[in-house]
Amino acid sequence: MSSSENAPTGSGPFLPRGDFQTIESGDAFMPKFDEHGLIPCITVDAATNEVLMFAYMNAEALEHTLATGRGTYYSRSRRKLWKKGEESGNVQQVRELLTDCDQDVILMKVEQIGGAACHTGHRSCFFRRINDARTLGHTGRERVFDPEKVYRK
Amino acid sequence: MSSSENAPTGSGPFLPRGDFQTIESGDAFMPKFDEHGLIPCITVDAATNEVLMFAYMNAEALEHTLATGRGTYYSRSRRKLWKKGEESGNVQQVRELLTDCDQDVILMKVEQIGGAACHTGHRSCFFRRINDARTLGHTGRERVFDPEKVYRK
Repeated sequence: MSSSENAPTGSGPFLPRGDFQTIESGDAFMPKFDEHGLIPCITVDAATNEVLMFAYMNAEALEHTLATGRGTYYSRSRRKLWKKGEESGNVQQVRELLTDCDQDVILMKVEQIGGAACHTGHRSCFFRRINDARTLGHTGRERVFDPEKVYRK
Repeated sequence: MSSSENAPTGSGPFLPRGDFQTIESGDAFMPKFDEHGLIPCITVDAATNEVLMFAYMNAEALEHTLATGRGTYYSRSRRKLWKKGEESGNVQQVRELLTDCDQDVILMKVEQIGGAACHTGHRSCFFRRINDARTLGHTGRERVFDPEKVYRK
């Protein structure tokens, strides 16, 4: 992954990467897309900061998110733009977008329409606690919707 | 990235990947390490849920985190285990570890000793807002420490 660390990866409307100081301290947005053209995105509830999900964006998804104010990702399994909620109606209204010190991660604060971000029907994809190296425990949060009903109608 | 989707990537003490149902609904921890042997980790403040940082773990880092209760990552740039706070003293006391529906991301809730997770001295690495496809704005949060003093003494 570090092979493309300093590569000029400007894509779409985004600036190519600048020097270290500009990236860490400047006011120019120079997102780093990895060797697959993707940048990780952490999506949280704008009201509570609860982490709802984690996914990737390509330049097109990030541009679409900025242009429409709706959370848009790139689906690695389906290999296409993923307009979150397009099928279920559970869209994400973007309240704020942030990036980190080295501009290689996006933090998206959203209002999650329908109340659940996870395709399993849970509010958050992070509904299981890691007990130890072998076992998980459910956090006890109930599902918000039944995916059988939402996705197969 | 999807090429290793179903590969048995059990590493260290961790179970190899199971079938879809087991991964999504089961109580066995079967973390997915990518083709570089890494899993993304989102680290948040256990008290407020504020996202503090984002980094990667390899199996050794995840095992070390579970064994010691201290946030431990893998530094891609230095290519070695990264015991967070080892130099600055700003360690992360783990309060809870979670994973997501497909078990390919870790969510770590911590008490951040020293109050700042970012090497720039900011509480969170996400201290800049994305205004548009070209510019960033500072969120206005002051730095907690001066990195010149913490890292160069």
